[in-house]
Amino acid sequence: MSILAIGTVAFDAIETPFGKVDRILGGSATYITLAARYFTNEIRLSAVVGHDFPQSDIALFHENGINTDGLIIDPAGKTFFWSGKYHMDLNNRDTLQTDLNVLATFDPKLPNSYLNSEIVCLGNLDPSIQLNVLNQLHQPELVVLDTMNYWIERTPEKLRAVLERADVLIINDAEARQLANVPNLIKAARIIRAMGPRYLVIKKGEHGALLFGEEAIFSAPALPIEDVVDPTGAGDSFAGGFVGYLASVRNYDFESLKLAVIYGSTMASFNVEAFGPDRLLHLTRSEIIHRADRFRMLGAIPEEVYEAI
Amino acid sequence: MSILAIGTVAFDAIETPFGKVDRILGGSATYITLAARYFTNEIRLSAVVGHDFPQSDIALFHENGINTDGLIIDPAGKTFFWSGKYHMDLNNRDTLQTDLNVLATFDPKLPNSYLNSEIVCLGNLDPSIQLNVLNQLHQPELVVLDTMNYWIERTPEKLRAVLERADVLIINDAEARQLANVPNLIKAARIIRAMGPRYLVIKKGEHGALLFGEEAIFSAPALPIEDVVDPTGAGDSFAGGFVGYLASVRNYDFESLKLAVIYGSTMASFNVEAFGPDRLLHLTRSEIIHRADRFRMLGAIPEEVYEAI
Repeated sequence: MSILAIGTVAFDAIETPFGKVDRILGGSATYITLAARYFTNEIRLSAVVGHDFPQSDIALFHENGINTDGLIIDPAGKTFFWSGKYHMDLNNRDTLQTDLNVLATFDPKLPNSYLNSEIVCLGNLDPSIQLNVLNQLHQPELVVLDTMNYWIERTPEKLRAVLERADVLIINDAEARQLANVPNLIKAARIIRAMGPRYLVIKKGEHGALLFGEEAIFSAPALPIEDVVDPTGAGDSFAGGFVGYLASVRNYDFESLKLAVIYGSTMASFNVEAFGPDRLLHLTRSEIIHRADRFRMLGAIPEEVYEAI
Repeated sequence: MSILAIGTVAFDAIETPFGKVDRILGGSATYITLAARYFTNEIRLSAVVGHDFPQSDIALFHENGINTDGLIIDPAGKTFFWSGKYHMDLNNRDTLQTDLNVLATFDPKLPNSYLNSEIVCLGNLDPSIQLNVLNQLHQPELVVLDTMNYWIERTPEKLRAVLERADVLIINDAEARQLANVPNLIKAARIIRAMGPRYLVIKKGEHGALLFGEEAIFSAPALPIEDVVDPTGAGDSFAGGFVGYLASVRNYDFESLKLAVIYGSTMASFNVEAFGPDRLLHLTRSEIIHRADRFRMLGAIPEEVYEAI
């Protein structure tokens, strides 16, 4: 089953309290596709890079089975560049530099071969671009949407238009509160689901994730990780594992969404173990299954003993 | 199986963004015993109150099957009084007034009938008092300890002495970081367990709780609550449900501790639905079981589908 991931492909400069890299492959679409590719074969990338994007990085996508027909190389400028520095607790970071470069004029016309994509993962981008992509596609089965505080604040009407067409929205808790304009997450979830998406995933970082559906809520644990090396791309790795799993089972009921959250968390937990996307490059099926199993054991509640009361 | 709960019995004045009460029964031992009494019959209270403590409140303990032989009435002063005001998000509060009153000279000599208590719940008090109580008891089977940032900061050596004798420590995430002096909770848990307690429960409020044991970690979800009326006593209600469940099954292995965490969370979730301890007064077995079941459904992860990868 095919997944189209549209987002950014970038170069990142990342500094944590424990190390730094000056220039590493990054971007939402990079993390989404590298994570999703373990679950299904037909992964389609849509993004734009500049004249400074090396052939070796395009080859990296190919080596990982990712279709780059929709990866535009814009010779007029450089690849999107982001530089960030994480605080001691690794939950917060400062953006030191954001050079949109060719991303500023990104106006994707999808290859014909992409138009029948069954699952589309709209990575964090200007909602105008996300709408543009949806309008080109021939009725995807599942639309998964990511956004960020910047668009919630600056382009609320465009964002609403995309939300109406989304099946799943994946955001973090601060964004959920901002989007719904209420402090309580449960109330926020109800408000947001009424905007369009029948499923809402609220990521809470080290506190796990909440999945809200028609009639149920699922609370997924976070893996207790002692040494986070680099949190960059964790959210997009989550999205990749999430859509990847759904593509592999081709089922979008609540139970499947729960497992999608678990596999998303699994891929994110690998991602943070190394700088950039490195840890996503050489995983095995066995490692992924064992890691997902750890999540299950972590949250497993024994059968109740009613005689206790 | 008997539980001894030692802590405070107090009068609280509580203000939230949604209401206020000027004087309501409170205190750690009040919440612990009122929660635990649903699980086992032999609940023993040890605390001190002043000349202003009405007979009707003593009767309240009796009506709920709580043994007050160890409730000292000190005629020389008033009952401990606390006044607090919660912020909009209800996660933070300001203490407006703390009148220790008779608590300042609390020096419990336990009734003989209490000395064979099998589970002892040492509510948040000066570690000297906690040690004093442990020294009087005849080899309890399980020692469950609560403390707070005040004692971690002011009396670290006395606290260490109690920790060495505790089987379970229940604290919140900020206190865990403070006690272990590291920011990472997993590292903090290892450091704290090496201080004495073989089990550590880290409460994370709206983010659930973590249970750390010899070889395993359990992540319990938090019930999504839309309208918290009053968070006062939630932590002590948790402790009461926790020790109550363990007293009822008389088993202290990791699986039992997991369920104890679930029942503790269950009792805390009832407690916050009304001011003070009111919601703990008229629960039914059926309500408690159904609420615990909601926690299970909330965190239930379906059996994995290995063919997904």
